[in-house]
Amino acid sequence: MVAVTPPAPISDAPLRVALLGCGVVGSQVARLLLDTPDDLSQRVGRPLELTGIGVRHPDAEREAIPATLFTKDSMALAASGADIVVEVIGGIEPARSLILAAIKAGSSVVTANKALLAAHGPELYAAAEAAGVDLYFEAAVAGAIPIIRPLRESLVGDEITTVMGIVNGTTNFILDKMTTEGLGFSEALQEAQDLGFAEADPTADVEGYDAAAKASILASLAFHTEVHGSQVHREGITSVSVDDIAAAARLGCVVKLLAVATVIEDDRVSVRVHPAMVPLDHPLASVRGAYNAIFVESRNAGSLMFLGPGAGGSPTASAVMGDLVTVARNRVRGTHGPKMTNYRGRDVAPIEDARTSHYLSMSVKDEPGVLAKIAGVFAKHEVSIAAVRQEKGDSDAAAMLGIMTHVARDADIADTAAELKSMGNVVVGKIRSIRVAGMS
Amino acid sequence: MVAVTPPAPISDAPLRVALLGCGVVGSQVARLLLDTPDDLSQRVGRPLELTGIGVRHPDAEREAIPATLFTKDSMALAASGADIVVEVIGGIEPARSLILAAIKAGSSVVTANKALLAAHGPELYAAAEAAGVDLYFEAAVAGAIPIIRPLRESLVGDEITTVMGIVNGTTNFILDKMTTEGLGFSEALQEAQDLGFAEADPTADVEGYDAAAKASILASLAFHTEVHGSQVHREGITSVSVDDIAAAARLGCVVKLLAVATVIEDDRVSVRVHPAMVPLDHPLASVRGAYNAIFVESRNAGSLMFLGPGAGGSPTASAVMGDLVTVARNRVRGTHGPKMTNYRGRDVAPIEDARTSHYLSMSVKDEPGVLAKIAGVFAKHEVSIAAVRQEKGDSDAAAMLGIMTHVARDADIADTAAELKSMGNVVVGKIRSIRVAGMS
Repeated sequence: MVAVTPPAPISDAPLRVALLGCGVVGSQVARLLLDTPDDLSQRVGRPLELTGIGVRHPDAEREAIPATLFTKDSMALAASGADIVVEVIGGIEPARSLILAAIKAGSSVVTANKALLAAHGPELYAAAEAAGVDLYFEAAVAGAIPIIRPLRESLVGDEITTVMGIVNGTTNFILDKMTTEGLGFSEALQEAQDLGFAEADPTADVEGYDAAAKASILASLAFHTEVHGSQVHREGITSVSVDDIAAAARLGCVVKLLAVATVIEDDRVSVRVHPAMVPLDHPLASVRGAYNAIFVESRNAGSLMFLGPGAGGSPTASAVMGDLVTVARNRVRGTHGPKMTNYRGRDVAPIEDARTSHYLSMSVKDEPGVLAKIAGVFAKHEVSIAAVRQEKGDSDAAAMLGIMTHVARDADIADTAAELKSMGNVVVGKIRSIRVAGMS
Repeated sequence: MVAVTPPAPISDAPLRVALLGCGVVGSQVARLLLDTPDDLSQRVGRPLELTGIGVRHPDAEREAIPATLFTKDSMALAASGADIVVEVIGGIEPARSLILAAIKAGSSVVTANKALLAAHGPELYAAAEAAGVDLYFEAAVAGAIPIIRPLRESLVGDEITTVMGIVNGTTNFILDKMTTEGLGFSEALQEAQDLGFAEADPTADVEGYDAAAKASILASLAFHTEVHGSQVHREGITSVSVDDIAAAARLGCVVKLLAVATVIEDDRVSVRVHPAMVPLDHPLASVRGAYNAIFVESRNAGSLMFLGPGAGGSPTASAVMGDLVTVARNRVRGTHGPKMTNYRGRDVAPIEDARTSHYLSMSVKDEPGVLAKIAGVFAKHEVSIAAVRQEKGDSDAAAMLGIMTHVARDADIADTAAELKSMGNVVVGKIRSIRVAGMS
């Protein structure tokens, strides 16, 4: 039998929590605050009291949440001077104004709002810093996976060189369906929509906006540098074809939508979202369905990976509650957590300067000397070839050529592809190009 | 171009850091403190100054560390009232006395010492709490993998139900060699020793003591309950045979040494270290060599996995430095991090009450009615059979029988095996039994 320290005496004064939004995540947060008050009190050192929930339709019935908590006046609730304001509305406005009002009223803020942080992060971080309150956002990236706190605290004594991950479950689900069931993009998207994994308007997911917002947050934290969402190079998955998936399979790879943030020189970083072939033996290759995973490389810790559910009400609520308890603990001690630092002030490099392997495939005339001419173009642009694969093409006169490059500048690959395209006497039809992750 | 906030004005007064131990980890910590002072200052808000290094042989030459920093009088250094004392000596004494002296002198402490925390954690946590200082130990479990902070902070608003992982790189390396190269335990151990992955006296690793210490720390954190290292049920890998590995392969599994901490009833937990078959499609199955991985299940976040290098100078130093910066930030703000809580006071159940699947294999007489008799014994002890595999045995008169059970109480499995063993007219020779993880 273990000796148990008696519960610490808990001050009667509860910490007041105001909740903005009561959708999939908000209703779970409300439930947890109402259902497990004793556990939370023990962990915080004082009780938490849910003082109100700001919603658009306060009269809609919501199971197991007292109707008296709801208010339509979210601004009054946000500015009420609660100890902690939790924002789970999403989007830019009114979320931004509500959070700024909460900070101005001296409240610490917990948010799951990646779009807002990617667009207005520095304004919000500065406001929180000036007011001496916390602004926590673990739930904004990769749902329940603890990645913000490890980057901000666990690895803060190290030098992070790369953060690379699958941070959008919808696109991962679609690519997974295309890979395992041979579906085309439109069919896979339809299935994702039918199952509720994709929105009616899927643009934010399939065009990579959601992943880009998360990439900007991860890069800002990892590199102590402000990276705005609009600075992230962004390519979605709408142009990923069944052919790309099949070519990847022949090469022992799968296609994933990756968010990549990497130091390319000491004072420059590359931050981007694009589809990429991932070798099957890379840990990110086996991340299935709506799961997220983030791979972190640092100077001393080496390679770390974090895996878990990337979205959903309960997982996101778990991340929000973790922040809520941490912020509440800070409040009890009259302190606040680490601020965002951007002292490194690194430049975000254009995509042209990104460095990865590429796989280029093209249809070429099947006659002597063709490979030599093509290889010459790669050499001219200083792109080193790692592997070549030639197969019978659609007609007797054509062959299919697939070329895997070593790591090269994106611009050099683009120049190579442009020159190849102009060689009508050798290359026939379109040239397809896809980046390859995890090879060097 | 991003607008860069000018570096915050940094107080001239440095935070003093005393380092105890200068081995593989300590020398890396010293190097990082001496090599990257500006980055660390920006992250902490004040400079860090390494004031001394306590070692047994201060006159031994150490590259790139000024000789004037070394002292033989570790106790005087520990008690010097430095802002932060970093203990990377390992073992119980003198580490325990040094840490208690540091705490008494008002210093916050960072340690990588799992053996000490497993044996004397509550004493140290209580001393730190009473003195109002921090005691951080991210490096004590799974090297550079951020697991302590996620358990202590990210998931603190959730209800953790299971923590299961590969937390000892040496045994994982040995089992990996046995699996991939068909080596026996002794040969694989020898190779691990030749490569420096195993100590000359490998007892702490191969008998599971190291993993048990880590399991006790993980369980204490995850379940808000004191779990002493000696309360952890412990089986090592010395009796894992080539036959076990081969049987696992036939079943689509690999054998891993697992540390498992799980809630079995609301007020009881099971904490144990033992070899187990892990299905190849489980994320832990693909953890290779000296890597560590920890799988966490919670009520709301679902399944999370953390993967990375489990040991080594640089990875462990990265974890120590992360703690050092966090503790230093707390110091700058005049506060401290969350204390250890044990308010749940759950009982640690005996191994008899653990619940897992098992795989039992035995040589049986090859004659009618044998399977019925054996199945009857399982039924009598309320062990449900999931799958049976019968193969030709060594002689015409014998067959090899392999039985996979559903999840069952450990004691019921033991009773089943004991009764089978007594049935000399049916079962010939030894019965082998191994637990199976990740199935239900």
